[in-house]
Amino acid sequence: MEGFSFSTEVQVRFAETDAQGIAHHAAFLVWCEVARVAWLDAYAGGYTSIRERGIEALTTGVSLTYHRAAYFHDRLTVWTRCVDVRGARFRYEYRIENDGEVVASGHTDHATVDAASRRPLRVPEWLADAISAAV
Amino acid sequence: MEGFSFSTEVQVRFAETDAQGIAHHAAFLVWCEVARVAWLDAYAGGYTSIRERGIEALTTGVSLTYHRAAYFHDRLTVWTRCVDVRGARFRYEYRIENDGEVVASGHTDHATVDAASRRPLRVPEWLADAISAAV
Amino acid sequence: MEGFSFSTEVQVRFAETDAQGIAHHAAFLVWCEVARVAWLDAYAGGYTSIRERGIEALTTGVSLTYHRAAYFHDRLTVWTRCVDVRGARFRYEYRIENDGEVVASGHTDHATVDAASRRPLRVPEWLADAISAAV
Amino acid sequence: MEGFSFSTEVQVRFAETDAQGIAHHAAFLVWCEVARVAWLDAYAGGYTSIRERGIEALTTGVSLTYHRAAYFHDRLTVWTRCVDVRGARFRYEYRIENDGEVVASGHTDHATVDAASRRPLRVPEWLADAISAAV
Repeated sequence: MEGFSFSTEVQVRFAETDAQGIAHHAAFLVWCEVARVAWLDAYAGGYTSIRERGIEALTTGVSLTYHRAAYFHDRLTVWTRCVDVRGARFRYEYRIENDGEVVASGHTDHATVDAASRRPLRVPEWLADAISAAV
Repeated sequence: MEGFSFSTEVQVRFAETDAQGIAHHAAFLVWCEVARVAWLDAYAGGYTSIRERGIEALTTGVSLTYHRAAYFHDRLTVWTRCVDVRGARFRYEYRIENDGEVVASGHTDHATVDAASRRPLRVPEWLADAISAAV
Repeated sequence: MEGFSFSTEVQVRFAETDAQGIAHHAAFLVWCEVARVAWLDAYAGGYTSIRERGIEALTTGVSLTYHRAAYFHDRLTVWTRCVDVRGARFRYEYRIENDGEVVASGHTDHATVDAASRRPLRVPEWLADAISAAV
Repeated sequence: MEGFSFSTEVQVRFAETDAQGIAHHAAFLVWCEVARVAWLDAYAGGYTSIRERGIEALTTGVSLTYHRAAYFHDRLTVWTRCVDVRGARFRYEYRIENDGEVVASGHTDHATVDAASRRPLRVPEWLADAISAAV
């Protein structure tokens, strides 16, 4: 996928379908999260290690466009990249593909906070560096 | 809520929380859907009656900004309105409040399709009229 | 409902349906939890107040029989009672009805633990008393 | 795992955790379903091929015991087997393990029905044979 170098696979679960016979649109947010977790495993020591340092990454915004329906059992490729680290904020972009066709695309916005106080916390340098290296 | 005249209540379920101790961001999409369904009940004869006429309303896009966390047991007010009916497309806007404070805001985009062929289908006049009347 | 004196209403959400066109079987566990939370609100000061005292109630078992399908938009009545408090353990029983017909029935088992240590903690007397009073 | 010869891996998603900091108990039902789907892929031509023949497999009962909590990011092994095909009914058994320790165990009951009429339909011979061969 142009501009993306990291991807994760998910397979549409039956529980993720709805009475329209397609994957429910909220499931895509869960898959984006699965992809972020895999990305953090690959590039930044894992989300768990971030949490263990007393940092939480909150989701502050989501924006997804659905181009095609996805169906039960479909194997989807979730292309992911982290962009735009600024202060306590960063964004992930996604393109979700099914057999080479774009099913959905968009981004999620996040902010790092101190786990205890929930106050904004600048993205730590080691994490910002990991993100830059991944890009 | 300024500009909104219809709202629905939801209470954060324990199953909707996550290990950050807050409502998971994907749950908000489900609450917006609950609000659309209630809106259709109030203004357009219900989503079931739309489906029975062979029309499906697909979700083609979502965009939400999360302003504050919501917690288990919180009672949230989901303000909803339908705007911008054009051809086969329409948009819902939302403001989700917790005790008067905005928790999240955004919109979802939809398209009506023929349930059988999945081809775009102009929003039927009676539904467009119902939407106009509600606005 | 014979033997039950407390009930909660839930309406099947579109997100809770699956490609069989019915409510997914896992959604029933979430409704049972919604009913437990409402029961605790009514009889025991609320689950939040229990958590604030440093007690967690874990789910240690579930057993449900599905008698009939439930469909999108159905309004279900979840009859609930707490039975069999013994040491750190207690059970809830359920009958889920749709317009007077039993849709599902069963029970869930729970254990109180110290929130910090996760060690079993005898159900506190005030809670056991509240449960007895409710029965 | 003694008595089991087929397993599937799932990794606990962040969306599957709850405010107790553990995987929510309803998520286990979804994982059992993921395991059944994988089992059907391996032994019976896939659930999709069953549905394409006009057969639906309904879930008629669930019974799970939770032995230990599972946490975000844990990789779980879901051991699965199909047992007791009788007429239109069959049962799956499960043991869910985390690094060799049993996290949960139990079974789900199912019935095959005609997809159109929703009437019970004897498990087709080819499927019963596939199940026997797998056992």
